[in-house]
Amino acid sequence: MTPKIAHFLAEHAPATPCLVVDVDRVEARYRSLHDVLPLARIYYAVKANPAEAILRRLVSLGSAFDAASWEEIRMCLDAGAQAQDISFGNTVKKVSAIANAHAAGVTMYAFDCIEELEKLARHAPGSRVYCRLIVENEGAEWPLSRKFGTTLDSARDLMLRARALGLDPYGLSFHVGSQQTTTDAYEAAIARVGMLFTDLAAAGLNLRMVNLGGGFPIRYREDVPEIDRFALAISHAMTEHFGNDLPEMIVEPGRFIVGDAGVVSSEVVLVTRRGLKDDTRWVYLDIGRFGGLAETEGESIRYGIRTPHDGGATGQVAIAGPTCDGADIMYEKAPYALPLDLASGDRIELLSTGAYVSTYCSTRFNGFAPLTEHYI
Amino acid sequence: MTPKIAHFLAEHAPATPCLVVDVDRVEARYRSLHDVLPLARIYYAVKANPAEAILRRLVSLGSAFDAASWEEIRMCLDAGAQAQDISFGNTVKKVSAIANAHAAGVTMYAFDCIEELEKLARHAPGSRVYCRLIVENEGAEWPLSRKFGTTLDSARDLMLRARALGLDPYGLSFHVGSQQTTTDAYEAAIARVGMLFTDLAAAGLNLRMVNLGGGFPIRYREDVPEIDRFALAISHAMTEHFGNDLPEMIVEPGRFIVGDAGVVSSEVVLVTRRGLKDDTRWVYLDIGRFGGLAETEGESIRYGIRTPHDGGATGQVAIAGPTCDGADIMYEKAPYALPLDLASGDRIELLSTGAYVSTYCSTRFNGFAPLTEHYI
Repeated sequence: MTPKIAHFLAEHAPATPCLVVDVDRVEARYRSLHDVLPLARIYYAVKANPAEAILRRLVSLGSAFDAASWEEIRMCLDAGAQAQDISFGNTVKKVSAIANAHAAGVTMYAFDCIEELEKLARHAPGSRVYCRLIVENEGAEWPLSRKFGTTLDSARDLMLRARALGLDPYGLSFHVGSQQTTTDAYEAAIARVGMLFTDLAAAGLNLRMVNLGGGFPIRYREDVPEIDRFALAISHAMTEHFGNDLPEMIVEPGRFIVGDAGVVSSEVVLVTRRGLKDDTRWVYLDIGRFGGLAETEGESIRYGIRTPHDGGATGQVAIAGPTCDGADIMYEKAPYALPLDLASGDRIELLSTGAYVSTYCSTRFNGFAPLTEHYI
Repeated sequence: MTPKIAHFLAEHAPATPCLVVDVDRVEARYRSLHDVLPLARIYYAVKANPAEAILRRLVSLGSAFDAASWEEIRMCLDAGAQAQDISFGNTVKKVSAIANAHAAGVTMYAFDCIEELEKLARHAPGSRVYCRLIVENEGAEWPLSRKFGTTLDSARDLMLRARALGLDPYGLSFHVGSQQTTTDAYEAAIARVGMLFTDLAAAGLNLRMVNLGGGFPIRYREDVPEIDRFALAISHAMTEHFGNDLPEMIVEPGRFIVGDAGVVSSEVVLVTRRGLKDDTRWVYLDIGRFGGLAETEGESIRYGIRTPHDGGATGQVAIAGPTCDGADIMYEKAPYALPLDLASGDRIELLSTGAYVSTYCSTRFNGFAPLTEHYI
């Protein structure tokens, strides 16, 4: 939690649940990534947090943007971004979204299959396209499954087909999974990309861009490797596989830029033991899985928690949200210990909740209004 | 899909994704439940779908309401419900919510622990309270876990304590889990409730109400027992355990009332094979887990699907949503076969999506606007 957020919470005690984001911290994170990877252009993953204050700040810093939908492209344009600095990074796009993006001047599009390529050729003719490879997500705390990406063989065919369809076969992308905590996945993926570059060059196709995706981890409750470790591994791997003929490099950080710039302030609604054999103490908050903490599904992302009683004796707890839904439990297996003095009415903070919280929030499940947001 | 919905979709072809609900069907379902369980008062579980058109229709039919939050209570009052016909059924309530409900005239509250009881005694003094028992959820497709309810022993102590705190120890409740497909769970739970009634009567406490919860199943892709089977089992069990001295009976249906009154109309965004070994065909829709289909988590609720190509040759598919999130997959293991002719741009219908869809929808994940709703 930054001093600015701590001060804001102390001074205003805003109604809970709410998300408070320090936009200066967003800027600092952008700069820190740019410093260690100066050769890579940063395309901020808008889906992590599309708040106008964040987009405007990043525009002022010269960031580019990775958009998941036509609506996100519109948010970027409204915040002052130029169309040529926006990548339409979702491999699954409605025809109407492609047409809108093309009309707005967006020139770069992701794809991973022939059907999408044909849609792009028709509705965004001549555009720069990049093919997403499927890579291992081992080491990621929020892996991306088999939903996206294609094989090396298939990507080769598709890039040749892109040229035949009058598109600009611009580059390749991969995504190692979100909150990726090892550098191995990047190194392995870059090696594959390098092979395909060489192979396609032999077939007369000169790709010019590698999109390294996002996935850079932030610290929740456990240490993660520093960003310079990732930068170093990526730079090494790129040099190893491309020599001095480095292609344009793109990174798409979301969580890394905004994650630790945000804090959720929440009220404890109830603390009780349920009278069951295990005697677990249950803590119920006024925010849960359907109020924005969707990444706690499967207890994947484990947020740090601050309470007014920190320093006192603690005991193991299960932590759940305020709805009548039995699935609205954040942590039941993960080892969470909270102060024994914690009680209904206390205000607590969920740390590093700037990414993937505000937009996952449900419109009104159980009647609860969406999370209020403060950008300071 | 009711003829009215089919007609509406054919005539208006509303922008997708959207939810269309036939309010006459809601009424028919309410009446059918009332017919088979005439002795039970129906408290509609507002969380299933709090649309004003639904609440107004149910008010006109004499329904009572089970609210999960102060906001849901407000929705019911705004739709014309009387405060005495509203139960505040969430066992986890903010103090401010209890105070608001009490001020608005709500007199019935759920609880399952001493801490909540003390909040009620203080902020809703004199109210009727009922204690929620933990029961087996076996047979439920959306079970409710260990988040709610307490043991028989603990409930006994709590009801005596309620009296000591100046509250009205009114009754007991349980919930067998949502989309409960067997009658056994109701029978077992009623037996336990009956025991506790007897036990507390011996201690000088005469409870007057049994809240049987909801959970009545609807047909998705597989047949479920008819509602009269549940009504019969419940009536038998109540008579067996209470004889002629039947307490007030409450049921809290949500899914049963609105589930099959709604249809989601969606556009197919992409159909492709990913070039992987298994050669699965992937179908991407413009609605997914974060656009309202949250109950597909773990592939629990399996909606029926209609396509324009029904009747033609089919093949196994995986079905995913439109976001960049790898978790946004509805069905990958469940056996779904869809027509081989299905293609990008087709409109399809997800059947029986009237319950637990509109409100789970995220505010704007990946930039996508919330599901549009039509009540006809």
